[in-house]
Amino acid sequence: MTKAKPVRSSALSNLEPEPAAEVGQNRGARWSLVETHILEEATSLFAGRGFASTSMQDIAGAAGLTRSALYHYFANKEAVLSRLVSDGTAVPAKELAKIRQRTSLDAVEKLRAMAYTIAYQQATRPDRFKVLVLSESELPESLSKAYYDGRRLVLKEVSAVIEAGTRAGVFRPVDARVAALGVIGLCNWVAWWHRPAGETANSEVARTLAEMAVASLAQADPDDQSAPLSTTDVLGMIKKDLAKLEHLLG
Amino acid sequence: MTKAKPVRSSALSNLEPEPAAEVGQNRGARWSLVETHILEEATSLFAGRGFASTSMQDIAGAAGLTRSALYHYFANKEAVLSRLVSDGTAVPAKELAKIRQRTSLDAVEKLRAMAYTIAYQQATRPDRFKVLVLSESELPESLSKAYYDGRRLVLKEVSAVIEAGTRAGVFRPVDARVAALGVIGLCNWVAWWHRPAGETANSEVARTLAEMAVASLAQADPDDQSAPLSTTDVLGMIKKDLAKLEHLLG
Repeated sequence: MTKAKPVRSSALSNLEPEPAAEVGQNRGARWSLVETHILEEATSLFAGRGFASTSMQDIAGAAGLTRSALYHYFANKEAVLSRLVSDGTAVPAKELAKIRQRTSLDAVEKLRAMAYTIAYQQATRPDRFKVLVLSESELPESLSKAYYDGRRLVLKEVSAVIEAGTRAGVFRPVDARVAALGVIGLCNWVAWWHRPAGETANSEVARTLAEMAVASLAQADPDDQSAPLSTTDVLGMIKKDLAKLEHLLG
Repeated sequence: MTKAKPVRSSALSNLEPEPAAEVGQNRGARWSLVETHILEEATSLFAGRGFASTSMQDIAGAAGLTRSALYHYFANKEAVLSRLVSDGTAVPAKELAKIRQRTSLDAVEKLRAMAYTIAYQQATRPDRFKVLVLSESELPESLSKAYYDGRRLVLKEVSAVIEAGTRAGVFRPVDARVAALGVIGLCNWVAWWHRPAGETANSEVARTLAEMAVASLAQADPDDQSAPLSTTDVLGMIKKDLAKLEHLLG
């Protein structure tokens, strides 16, 4: 452990929490703002020098907080990392579960919403996800379990929607696990190439990838479905084509 | 630097190269086999303890070679890492360039072949790629440049094929860079979830992902193409439908 050093006064000292007695009442927007600030600074430190070589003193220094102020927010370094793990795995897994349970959406709409959710998160906070992947081998045992459990849950949610879509005939028959991991990769990889931009640019990237995810599995053409065409199907197609021709000829 | 220690005799000592005088003639299959073995062992060490904390002595020990034998294959640790970088970036970029230049393939077939190439490589040697991504920040300057240049080349090749496909009307109109990065992510992510299995399982995974990559961008339906249909187009469609009907009626 690094020995505690006095922290120089900082432009961010106004982020220090209210005295302990008031903390309970004040856990609102401001508390959450400071927490996010601490998590961002901790992410940079963990990414730069590794989890093991980062102390609470380092995090306090980077965040411009005194050590004692930092301890109001996080009991120890493991608590910081634990929060990064749950934000990066269990929290998105819960969001995906909510999407899967929405009865108003069909499988295509659910997959689109799931892919958008994952891609948008990576576009907005690429470093948060990268640091987890980079620190996989460094995670303490209990967090390592939470991390892999959370990732498994994400996979389970995406797989379930793909399976449902395949049964409903809107997705091609595929190995749902491989397909889900493909979709997750399509979206996760954003963390490696996208520099967080404005809200519009982030959501534009997420939208493009979500459309790709859906298209990657959608039944391309009803003609391709395994059921063979009947004479009635083909007559229907000809009628549609004739209507188009009629429209073109005015 | 770790001080050189005498290396205990090893079951792999038969991998040591021939005496120097014969080396030139023997750079064939056996040389390449030993090189691959060294690169695999170095990959594990770099992944486990980082590039900076790994010495040539460590690599020699892990590979069951004497230090002097190891130096026949690689002049120093940077040469080992340099080879991992080029195998992971410049070499696949060259393979993709060859695919792009094949005049017998259309854009769909080229994208399928490119995605298969990337996914198959990640399925076969996931650790090689992961260690590069994990060591990005640790790479010496010259290798860092080679690494990012190689990755940019991969992106350039995939983007070029997507652009050509969009112009030809076989791919949807998309931001080619975002779409290419999506395809690359779909394929690269394999390194994080696939345990290398037999040849059949690896290529099955690569085939599934390559099909997803193509479908993610393919024009779902010729009706959706931006160019409006002419009366001739529709007459052609009706003729095709009539031929189908004729076939169905025997």
